Amino acid sequence: MAVYTEISDDELEAFIAEYDIGAVVSCKGIAEGVENSNYLLSTTGGTYILTLYEKRVARTDLPYFLGLMDHLAARGIACPTPIHGRDGAALRAIAGRPAAVVSFLKGLWVRRPTVAHCSALGEALAALHLAGRDFRLARANDLGMAGWRKLHDDVAARAHEVEAGLAGEVAAELETLASTWPRDLPIGVIHADLFPDNVFFLDDRLSGLIDFYFACNDFLAYDLAVCLNAWCFEPTGEFNATKARALIAAYRKSRPLDPAELDALPILARGSALRFLLTRLYDWLHHVEGALVKPKDPLEYARKLRFHRGVAGPAAYGVA
Amino acid sequence: MAVYTEISDDELEAFIAEYDIGAVVSCKGIAEGVENSNYLLSTTGGTYILTLYEKRVARTDLPYFLGLMDHLAARGIACPTPIHGRDGAALRAIAGRPAAVVSFLKGLWVRRPTVAHCSALGEALAALHLAGRDFRLARANDLGMAGWRKLHDDVAARAHEVEAGLAGEVAAELETLASTWPRDLPIGVIHADLFPDNVFFLDDRLSGLIDFYFACNDFLAYDLAVCLNAWCFEPTGEFNATKARALIAAYRKSRPLDPAELDALPILARGSALRFLLTRLYDWLHHVEGALVKPKDPLEYARKLRFHRGVAGPAAYGVA
Repeated sequence: MAVYTEISDDELEAFIAEYDIGAVVSCKGIAEGVENSNYLLSTTGGTYILTLYEKRVARTDLPYFLGLMDHLAARGIACPTPIHGRDGAALRAIAGRPAAVVSFLKGLWVRRPTVAHCSALGEALAALHLAGRDFRLARANDLGMAGWRKLHDDVAARAHEVEAGLAGEVAAELETLASTWPRDLPIGVIHADLFPDNVFFLDDRLSGLIDFYFACNDFLAYDLAVCLNAWCFEPTGEFNATKARALIAAYRKSRPLDPAELDALPILARGSALRFLLTRLYDWLHHVEGALVKPKDPLEYARKLRFHRGVAGPAAYGVA
Repeated sequence: MAVYTEISDDELEAFIAEYDIGAVVSCKGIAEGVENSNYLLSTTGGTYILTLYEKRVARTDLPYFLGLMDHLAARGIACPTPIHGRDGAALRAIAGRPAAVVSFLKGLWVRRPTVAHCSALGEALAALHLAGRDFRLARANDLGMAGWRKLHDDVAARAHEVEAGLAGEVAAELETLASTWPRDLPIGVIHADLFPDNVFFLDDRLSGLIDFYFACNDFLAYDLAVCLNAWCFEPTGEFNATKARALIAAYRKSRPLDPAELDALPILARGSALRFLLTRLYDWLHHVEGALVKPKDPLEYARKLRFHRGVAGPAAYGVA
């Protein structure tokens, strides 16, 4: 749930008048996005999302995020399309915050993804990667190895509060990954946070991908590893290799994976599990008692990490 | 901002299938209503609000609230209209909570009400009171005198933390009101919480009244006193008698006020100011450090209370 910046009706009307999207009919703050304030905006011209960028998103990254959505939408990816003002600018300001209006995507996210959903996801992820190839801006992954080290330094002293021995496990994992992390895999634009709540379906067809605010340039196969973690474990903690196989097979139909990418999958999956373990540990340990946002369980990702550590090779993910 | 109950896509689809409003297109949790979880629901049939009633709303009051909205909407009041399921029931259940779907109202609430807005409000309030006359259910005002005493007992020991001397002032006010509170004014259905954020305007025309979850049967003129407090003070704390005059004059055009009601306005305004002072004090003193919801300033209502205490008679509100 987001922290909301209040927008006055006068401010909103003046802001929307800078666009060619009609007059405001309603505007409701919505409970989506932890980093930003999001409003579902209805105008006489249609329905849109108005996003106000709060402090956790770096100002300097906004042209990358908005430019990427423009770029992907122009190439047929179902993602929020930035609406440009009459003067051509998509990144504007309201209530003292940088802000943008993007198109509204229909659909619901699935709470219990099926094999068919994983297959649709794989196809969409490959299409995203292909469409991103000629995007001309670049952004480093600030939740890559250097970011993990920084998070680790922040949580190491208190990780035992979550589970005995967790600090040592995380430190050892970080060292292993630092020495085994691939150096030479295909790089491109990745979403980096493609969890089920960022993927909409309508009548079981994938209708859109949202929330590009972790997007960056990194190993394309790392995005697949994020999806393996986010989509292919059952609520009980068991890994569903049928879902993984469907995800990867659908991906490979549009974007074949190099042998090096396939071989790297277990280590990439460990890295991705460690990334979410670390951010969840951070949020858990910095959680304010009584705050409305309930932090997500870090141990879910400790368990996923352990699964990937025990994997012999990519065959564990259903890869032939 | 509300605490949200999560609804799964499967649950939602099964729930909506009990209505004749088409298939779900999207469903977004919205940041409205402190007591309940609210979702902006879009279906192939239109746009609706789905409300899940959380603990703070008594189950036994729900038939009153929903019945009232049905009743008022049938009499032409622009308010949310409960949508009935195929079996006729409007009050249903989802995700373990009582729930209802109501029609969506267009409009924005005004952050800085003008005299014209106050006039439109007065007209709408009188229309609401007239439309409520033949509503056959009744509900006591649990934030009347007995409720104030209970809140007072809860906050008395710590009111000085907000302002020195505030506890004594509140106790004295409570005693004065207990002995001077009117006994014999016209009673009917009142909204009891008609603040600017519960009144929508579209192109400067009043387009709807929302949030009937404090509605009850009490003095009709008390509703007017709530509006005097909520709409006629400037952000600087000054009372704008021109706005008050416009509000009351527009109200009286549709529903003339008895001499006894006019005479009682200052005391009703004090009671209404005390009611919001007490609930805000309660929320302020029970606020959890770091929680996302920022409590509203109780002293705003202490200042309003003091204004009304210094008033000689209804003429202070622009009443001829």
